[in-house]
Amino acid sequence: MTILHDDRLFDAEPKARGVARALYETVKDLPLVSPHGHTDPRWYAENAHFPDPAQLLIVPDHYVFRMLFSQGVRLEDLGVPTADGSAVETDGRTIWRRFAENYYLFRGTPTRMWMDHTLATLFGITERLTPANADATYDRIAELLLTDAYRPRQLFERFNLEVISTTDAALDDLRWHEMIAQSGWNGRVVPAYRPDSVVDPDFDGFDQNLDRLGEITGEDTGSWAGYLEAHRQRRAFFIKHGATSSDHGHPTADTANLSANAASLLFDKVRTGTANAAEKALFRAQMLTEMAKMSVDDGLVLQIHPGSWRNHSPAMMTRFGRDKGFDIPTQTDYVGALKPLLDVVGTEPDLSVILFTLDETSYARELAPLAGVYPALKLGPPWWFHDSPEGMRRFREMATETAGFYNTVGFNDDTRAFPSIPARHDVARRIDCAFLARLVTEHRLEEDEAHEVAHDLAYRLVKQAYRL
Amino acid sequence: MTILHDDRLFDAEPKARGVARALYETVKDLPLVSPHGHTDPRWYAENAHFPDPAQLLIVPDHYVFRMLFSQGVRLEDLGVPTADGSAVETDGRTIWRRFAENYYLFRGTPTRMWMDHTLATLFGITERLTPANADATYDRIAELLLTDAYRPRQLFERFNLEVISTTDAALDDLRWHEMIAQSGWNGRVVPAYRPDSVVDPDFDGFDQNLDRLGEITGEDTGSWAGYLEAHRQRRAFFIKHGATSSDHGHPTADTANLSANAASLLFDKVRTGTANAAEKALFRAQMLTEMAKMSVDDGLVLQIHPGSWRNHSPAMMTRFGRDKGFDIPTQTDYVGALKPLLDVVGTEPDLSVILFTLDETSYARELAPLAGVYPALKLGPPWWFHDSPEGMRRFREMATETAGFYNTVGFNDDTRAFPSIPARHDVARRIDCAFLARLVTEHRLEEDEAHEVAHDLAYRLVKQAYRL
Amino acid sequence: MTILHDDRLFDAEPKARGVARALYETVKDLPLVSPHGHTDPRWYAENAHFPDPAQLLIVPDHYVFRMLFSQGVRLEDLGVPTADGSAVETDGRTIWRRFAENYYLFRGTPTRMWMDHTLATLFGITERLTPANADATYDRIAELLLTDAYRPRQLFERFNLEVISTTDAALDDLRWHEMIAQSGWNGRVVPAYRPDSVVDPDFDGFDQNLDRLGEITGEDTGSWAGYLEAHRQRRAFFIKHGATSSDHGHPTADTANLSANAASLLFDKVRTGTANAAEKALFRAQMLTEMAKMSVDDGLVLQIHPGSWRNHSPAMMTRFGRDKGFDIPTQTDYVGALKPLLDVVGTEPDLSVILFTLDETSYARELAPLAGVYPALKLGPPWWFHDSPEGMRRFREMATETAGFYNTVGFNDDTRAFPSIPARHDVARRIDCAFLARLVTEHRLEEDEAHEVAHDLAYRLVKQAYRL
Repeated sequence: MTILHDDRLFDAEPKARGVARALYETVKDLPLVSPHGHTDPRWYAENAHFPDPAQLLIVPDHYVFRMLFSQGVRLEDLGVPTADGSAVETDGRTIWRRFAENYYLFRGTPTRMWMDHTLATLFGITERLTPANADATYDRIAELLLTDAYRPRQLFERFNLEVISTTDAALDDLRWHEMIAQSGWNGRVVPAYRPDSVVDPDFDGFDQNLDRLGEITGEDTGSWAGYLEAHRQRRAFFIKHGATSSDHGHPTADTANLSANAASLLFDKVRTGTANAAEKALFRAQMLTEMAKMSVDDGLVLQIHPGSWRNHSPAMMTRFGRDKGFDIPTQTDYVGALKPLLDVVGTEPDLSVILFTLDETSYARELAPLAGVYPALKLGPPWWFHDSPEGMRRFREMATETAGFYNTVGFNDDTRAFPSIPARHDVARRIDCAFLARLVTEHRLEEDEAHEVAHDLAYRLVKQAYRL
Repeated sequence: MTILHDDRLFDAEPKARGVARALYETVKDLPLVSPHGHTDPRWYAENAHFPDPAQLLIVPDHYVFRMLFSQGVRLEDLGVPTADGSAVETDGRTIWRRFAENYYLFRGTPTRMWMDHTLATLFGITERLTPANADATYDRIAELLLTDAYRPRQLFERFNLEVISTTDAALDDLRWHEMIAQSGWNGRVVPAYRPDSVVDPDFDGFDQNLDRLGEITGEDTGSWAGYLEAHRQRRAFFIKHGATSSDHGHPTADTANLSANAASLLFDKVRTGTANAAEKALFRAQMLTEMAKMSVDDGLVLQIHPGSWRNHSPAMMTRFGRDKGFDIPTQTDYVGALKPLLDVVGTEPDLSVILFTLDETSYARELAPLAGVYPALKLGPPWWFHDSPEGMRRFREMATETAGFYNTVGFNDDTRAFPSIPARHDVARRIDCAFLARLVTEHRLEEDEAHEVAHDLAYRLVKQAYRL
Repeated sequence: MTILHDDRLFDAEPKARGVARALYETVKDLPLVSPHGHTDPRWYAENAHFPDPAQLLIVPDHYVFRMLFSQGVRLEDLGVPTADGSAVETDGRTIWRRFAENYYLFRGTPTRMWMDHTLATLFGITERLTPANADATYDRIAELLLTDAYRPRQLFERFNLEVISTTDAALDDLRWHEMIAQSGWNGRVVPAYRPDSVVDPDFDGFDQNLDRLGEITGEDTGSWAGYLEAHRQRRAFFIKHGATSSDHGHPTADTANLSANAASLLFDKVRTGTANAAEKALFRAQMLTEMAKMSVDDGLVLQIHPGSWRNHSPAMMTRFGRDKGFDIPTQTDYVGALKPLLDVVGTEPDLSVILFTLDETSYARELAPLAGVYPALKLGPPWWFHDSPEGMRRFREMATETAGFYNTVGFNDDTRAFPSIPARHDVARRIDCAFLARLVTEHRLEEDEAHEVAHDLAYRLVKQAYRL
């Protein structure tokens, strides 16, 4: 295939390339383990055909439309739905043509690599996307999407996915997961417990969400004790449906360790809507510690994804809603922020807390030193803006010397873009092999060890860290 | 020429070097576009001979004398003028000898590369500068500076400068630009609107500067409305003289979005000298937003150069004045700081705001995500301490994956050191070609695309971004 | 030796490797100068045999046991002594086996490189450490440790140490240094003045420490003037015993420049235990400036090691005490923090202040610009978590272009792990040669110059900077 070179992402230097190739050869076909992501469980439950190419590949992918928007293409013209339902472009072919005309904007970005990989391996397209071949490409993809081989479960199997985790609101009834389980299909799709809507007082409808949490669980979510018990019940419900992790996306990594009495008083303020901004932040901080304590009991792996300034543009938020590319990373402290939680559970041998960051300055300075000593901590892979060749390389260069490989947890694709999953894992495997190849050619690691590490990074560590 | 290797700054690996060479071959002779810098328009207006080698190459270049000072050479002994006019070394040859004796201090620095390039290409010097050849080198340069071919306009043409922008105070009468325009010379020298002296309440003589602004424009700069109108007039005056941009060098990137009434009250405090430090900072912040709104109307490209702690040493400031090497970068936030401005004009398709930073940690974390989604934002090239081979490489590695190439704006030489301009552009072109060559050899970009990008980075994007 | 490749840490690209090899060949056998570290002077004074392999190589090395602890090995099982003296593993062989079983955890870390180097060059072990050869390795090391050739002075000579500095509390009687001096042995072991216990009001027993300082010096440490005079006396005492430097490990780099009167009043509060947290911090800040002023007088080189959050886990501090791996770096400001000190002594030509950091973001942004202009400042080598191949490479890439090579001070091993000293210097020399080789192959530096710089970085600069 011309747009996918066999040696892509490997160093040009022949010895390093040779080692990278040999390492990659042994991991490229390992099953994909996807412990954190945002695909829709309904897809696997209903197994309906995906709609047209644009709806599959452009409209839901904020990596794609944020770049186009930055260069003056209106989101409406890309089919991104508006919050008020006002009209947007619905013709898939028109959207696809706009994308093809602007495909050069993605030069040097991971989107370009993911898209080329998807077009080549999934749709058999061997030419670079251009305005001239946009229609033919569109037709080819559209045609294939109508076939049974391109339905969600068939793609799941084709992708060699061993297991995939979705991310699910605490109040979710997990009906699609239930439906998958009942269906007799062998694909393993598990939920993850994401309680933002019931732990973040600034979340839309927080108060009603807590009422609903009480109804679902039969607990008194007007009291601190009942509220915590309701969480325990929901976590148990998720675990029964296969969950092995919870996920928390607070603005900061702040944690707190209040006395039971102080926490209860704080909860009352939050519950009655009388908490100020600092108290709301403190409540979120306290809830991370509460979740960690519950994890010690029920074994859920705790994921912390801090540091995103969500919905930075109020105008765009009003017009298009959440997750439209206007989430911007900010400086994030971990050393002071995590201390209250670590003081309580940092040396628990059975707890697993996986830390993510959008602030690469924390890799060598804070995260590797923390994960390199606290048994409860592990480092998640490069996240979001950094799940790219250069970003992954920087992560290994900055984290490995202090945290080692074995305090990291393999790769997460973290994506809504289902067809890009194999491409994303492939990039990660290649970059890890290239990094290991450098260590080997610089005689910092022997080749037999590099093979073992490559396998661990591609497959074993993620299963172990996420208990999958 | 022995001190300038044809393949300098290209990877040693032969395939990568070959690609870099091929790319560079097609861009090395493109005209230079210099949209931001600090050369003196009087040079081009009067076209007088430059004085001696030391006055041309050492005395005005703070990259040069700061390094020498750090290693114990007194600024007086380098001919740097004192604020009170007390005597300093005036013998060019003596200064040049001191420089030659200490030339080894610049090993590994961009100054070394720029100086070697200048000596070799401009003065035909093929040996490395040493104490032994200092006198001969001095004589050679001095001799050439007396010839007509080394006058400012002739060098401008020899350098293949298509256009150069100076940086000019808001109160400047632009007489030299006027004189150039009247002269019939074809060289294009444009001003840029730099209003620090009339927007920064901490600027020396701020109050008198506003009086003067009123006199020049006939507006009442005692009122907020009149003050804004005076800015509009000055901007129009600059535009008439060819300006396409304004430039703003605040201590932080803070912006504000006050109501007209609140802004007016704040102006009154600032104008009457009763504003405290926080109010002065707020005024500067508000003025960035005001300038952006004016840019929407008049089309001036807005450049923001924040994050320098100016004149860090009061003793050196007192003895030698501004711009003597004691400006030190500080941590700079953009995500929160720019939000008020972006809330107002961030999605304006016709606005162009170019962001610079002295804090490289913001490239991947803040600047690329912001420029990768807001249509009004573009990223300026690596600035000041970072306009160096390693700094430029880090910029491409950290910014490209999220912002792409097309949200960046090509190169700025940003210099007072006129003879170093070709050297600086050459370094930038080489580093960009080396970066692209790596993408090509790692099969992340195809070679025909790399050629197009190399041309865009060397020539097209800067003209487009600066509307030149 | 199979586990130590001759070309380790050099680029794989043949031309760069060739240059690196040629550079390294000329510096690898230069004497080691160790101007900052934590070996015990008693070793050299008494010259007793080292105890068993585990007590020598595992138990005292927090790089080793922190990694093992992070992966679930209890510190008790590694023989790390408890604060209350409760029992821990004492069988060296058992500890060594645990280490061997977990040796794979160190893949990609500097500990792995240091340990392999030590095993190979010091104990003639040529196989990678595994559970299978753990016993044989243990026996071999244990046997050698019993021989006279492996006593401290003999190792000192074998290591080709020209001089080593220990770090000594201000109240220390320097008896071991005295004993070494009296012994007639030629090895040069010098103390460094580390006054934390008498300048940090939060230090255990601060008040009694000041009483003791008064007794030792005969000065009235109840008064500011007497307290300063007592410092002067202690510094003179250290200088008499060979000290050329002082060392300061404050939580931040904050300095202050109070009037004599304000400082005196602050001292009274601190001395009487009535200072609050901010006042204690201000006192530490003021004391850095006082130390710098004393350095102008007595010539001690001032080392500042800021930015570590010491003893982050109170539970581990309680159980095992200080220096057990729970010191975590934090963001550190230098530009504002050092200004008060620099305002007083920053341009003193005879003062030498060496700055260290645990926050790599400060290299290019703050430290290189500061050291690149202030004559009193030099940059220490990468410290602690960053004294690793990648860390050292980043330091050169980020600091050199602005500070040059000649505002840096060569290498510090900074270690308690005596047998690892040659390994650490060897890694530093190799990385510097690899960095210089890249400059040469990219034609940024000529090879004859690179040879001179390699020698300077390995030997000359450290002697000059530390006045050794």
